[in-house]
Amino acid sequence: MTDTLATNFSSEQVSNIIAALNAGKFVSVRKILHETPAPDVALLLESSPTKTRDDLWQLIDPDFHGDVLEELSEDVRNGIIAKMMPDTVVDALEDMDTDDLAETLSTLPDEVLQDILTSMDSQDRHRAEQALSYGEETAGFIMNTDTITLRPDVAIDVILRYLRLRGELPENTDTFYVVNRSDVLIGSVPVTRLITSSPDVTVAEIMDEEPEVIGVGMPDDQVASLFERYNWLSAPVVDENHHLVGRITIDDVVDIIREDAEHSMMSMAGLDDEEDTFAPALQSTQRRSIWLGVNLVTALLAAMVSDMFEQTLSQLAVLAILNTIVPSMGGVAGNQTLTLVIRGMALGHVNDSNAKFLISKELLIGFLNGIIWATLIASVVALWKQDFMLGVIIAFAMLVNMIAAGLAGATLPLIMKKLKIDPALAGSVILTTITDVIGIFAFLGTATLFLI
Amino acid sequence: MTDTLATNFSSEQVSNIIAALNAGKFVSVRKILHETPAPDVALLLESSPTKTRDDLWQLIDPDFHGDVLEELSEDVRNGIIAKMMPDTVVDALEDMDTDDLAETLSTLPDEVLQDILTSMDSQDRHRAEQALSYGEETAGFIMNTDTITLRPDVAIDVILRYLRLRGELPENTDTFYVVNRSDVLIGSVPVTRLITSSPDVTVAEIMDEEPEVIGVGMPDDQVASLFERYNWLSAPVVDENHHLVGRITIDDVVDIIREDAEHSMMSMAGLDDEEDTFAPALQSTQRRSIWLGVNLVTALLAAMVSDMFEQTLSQLAVLAILNTIVPSMGGVAGNQTLTLVIRGMALGHVNDSNAKFLISKELLIGFLNGIIWATLIASVVALWKQDFMLGVIIAFAMLVNMIAAGLAGATLPLIMKKLKIDPALAGSVILTTITDVIGIFAFLGTATLFLI
Repeated sequence: MTDTLATNFSSEQVSNIIAALNAGKFVSVRKILHETPAPDVALLLESSPTKTRDDLWQLIDPDFHGDVLEELSEDVRNGIIAKMMPDTVVDALEDMDTDDLAETLSTLPDEVLQDILTSMDSQDRHRAEQALSYGEETAGFIMNTDTITLRPDVAIDVILRYLRLRGELPENTDTFYVVNRSDVLIGSVPVTRLITSSPDVTVAEIMDEEPEVIGVGMPDDQVASLFERYNWLSAPVVDENHHLVGRITIDDVVDIIREDAEHSMMSMAGLDDEEDTFAPALQSTQRRSIWLGVNLVTALLAAMVSDMFEQTLSQLAVLAILNTIVPSMGGVAGNQTLTLVIRGMALGHVNDSNAKFLISKELLIGFLNGIIWATLIASVVALWKQDFMLGVIIAFAMLVNMIAAGLAGATLPLIMKKLKIDPALAGSVILTTITDVIGIFAFLGTATLFLI
Repeated sequence: MTDTLATNFSSEQVSNIIAALNAGKFVSVRKILHETPAPDVALLLESSPTKTRDDLWQLIDPDFHGDVLEELSEDVRNGIIAKMMPDTVVDALEDMDTDDLAETLSTLPDEVLQDILTSMDSQDRHRAEQALSYGEETAGFIMNTDTITLRPDVAIDVILRYLRLRGELPENTDTFYVVNRSDVLIGSVPVTRLITSSPDVTVAEIMDEEPEVIGVGMPDDQVASLFERYNWLSAPVVDENHHLVGRITIDDVVDIIREDAEHSMMSMAGLDDEEDTFAPALQSTQRRSIWLGVNLVTALLAAMVSDMFEQTLSQLAVLAILNTIVPSMGGVAGNQTLTLVIRGMALGHVNDSNAKFLISKELLIGFLNGIIWATLIASVVALWKQDFMLGVIIAFAMLVNMIAAGLAGATLPLIMKKLKIDPALAGSVILTTITDVIGIFAFLGTATLFLI
């Protein structure tokens, strides 16, 4: 059963569950939900409008609530928790790992969080407050504290005997960490090496000394890029005195990698990363309006540039017709450069030593683009409007704007990074404003000089 | 040494190496490169212009070439291989895992690949051809064949003794697979369970029966989303008869997750995913020109719509000035919807059962956006141009275009998916064409009816 569900949990199954729900077959929906793994239930909830989502949640076994909550995205999870009674939330959170607990609690609105903390017994509250004590988006925040530690002077067979007595190991344990008496990390032993080593050697003899470590305050995107670059499955987290405080496993990092990569795409379109696809329309409208507002201002700015040339436009309507072409091409070319540089920065490929090369390269591309598209648009316009001079003017504007686009696309993200502004968030709108203003100014300005 | 490098391989170190290279200190650069882990050398190469990259490559120990090649992105790797002698390439490929070998060879241009295959001895050639035999972007292509299999009727202590004799296990082994005499997969045993179980039980007693499997032909993005959804570290790959043929590990999947997420962002900006940030300008210009060409056509299309209203524009220059605002707002709103739906589809959240809801929701958002921005722009225009009627007309055009943007943004990716076109690739340009044409038509058309 699990096998088929896992590899085939398909839109067809989702449709079937929704159909059963709509037909009022609650008993059978409850049964299906009970047999479905938590990640699939989460997927089903993510794919449902708010109303359906609430109905489905009622039919999920409460013992299962925590597992499902862990898998949900922030917006969806918060929406559900906000409608639950604080003490049922506390029950659901009870069995969560520290890292999941920290993530779940940290994104809740303050008043909801306070209600939940108040409903907890003192032991749970202590655990929750500890989980929240590390800054959001740090290594401490995403780490797990259920680490198995070994002492260096113990023989392997003693450890194997101990582990057999202990039973089940924490999830995703692939490495044991070796600490001294003051809990300072001094080595690591992969689980597989424990198996392949002779039983009478000591831990110290087979451990890797000075393993790679992650500081508890390291930003999570840096953690993710280390995991990605070195193909780690897990890594120990230490405090400033090199005491072992936890471990980070790849499954938590995968989420960060996905979110970071998505963040740029969503930001560039003026969306909040966490926007829930099936949120109520009013909420989505409100969230998206900031970007549209900014865009309205920049569109008005471009219109004001055109307005400076009202005289020219009233004499030659053909300029009005062609006025959008140069800004549009500049916007596309500039956004290509911008996107490439933003990605290069995210991957760590762009740095001070090659920034100058990159800017010159993009300037050169802008110039080459300018030559190509200026020639083309000049021919089209000269033929279409039977006006050679008009062709020359639009070609000149195109060349100027393409060079500006290359320069702005390459330098903007570098400047914004120095100013500590996220280039994915505002880069695109600033860029388009630049290419719009320069494109319109170059085209209408030159036309005013030579045609009027 | 390794410790500091790994966690701190910074742009400062990159700058130092480049400075030493430029100063002609080849011996010391060679030494530094030798002490730097392969992923960091790869990062250094990725961050360098082609000329520097070639110089650095000459200074890397040939024994190390394979390890570095594995870590490079397609474009950079192919650029380097194209300049190597076929037999040195063969040496570099010798120690690669099957999945890395398949990936490296598959992206090479045909003539280079043939040269390399010809230079291989028959055993290596056989291995290479086998690695290439599975379709690109399938599970078979990214799997590893170095799997440790167990028989169900063997006792744990026998296995532990065998593993101790065998020594080092294949990289990232977290699970052993259990097969019957005909190599059919019948179970799996996590490495940690082997440790915690009593030595005298048999494999059959502790194995998970019917483990989750991946078919050898499954598309790699589907593999990645299974790993992501179920937090797997590895999974067995089987052929159509359920024979175990290999295993996929999370480190290969992480690359696919990153690439998939980046693909949408790069495509939406009209860039090739694999575009090398530091490629020569001429090559980049050529690659980016397709998108600019498509955009020129759509910009001309928009100009032709304006051209239909030449009469109107020549009588009222103010229309020319305001003509860009409505298309611009429609483009931004439409792209928000488009991006959200494309992401929802990539995450598997959008399906037939909720598509209708999603479209109605985005239509409603379009309507609400329309009301908000129509009111605002009407007020601005009426005040700025002291023309109430003009305000009403631009408001009407804004409302129409915002609704069109919501509808087009939500339906386009769904239609394109049915037509098996990648919505990230062409969605944005089609959308912008729609919002441009409708925006201009609505604004100038209404103005012609009421103002002329």
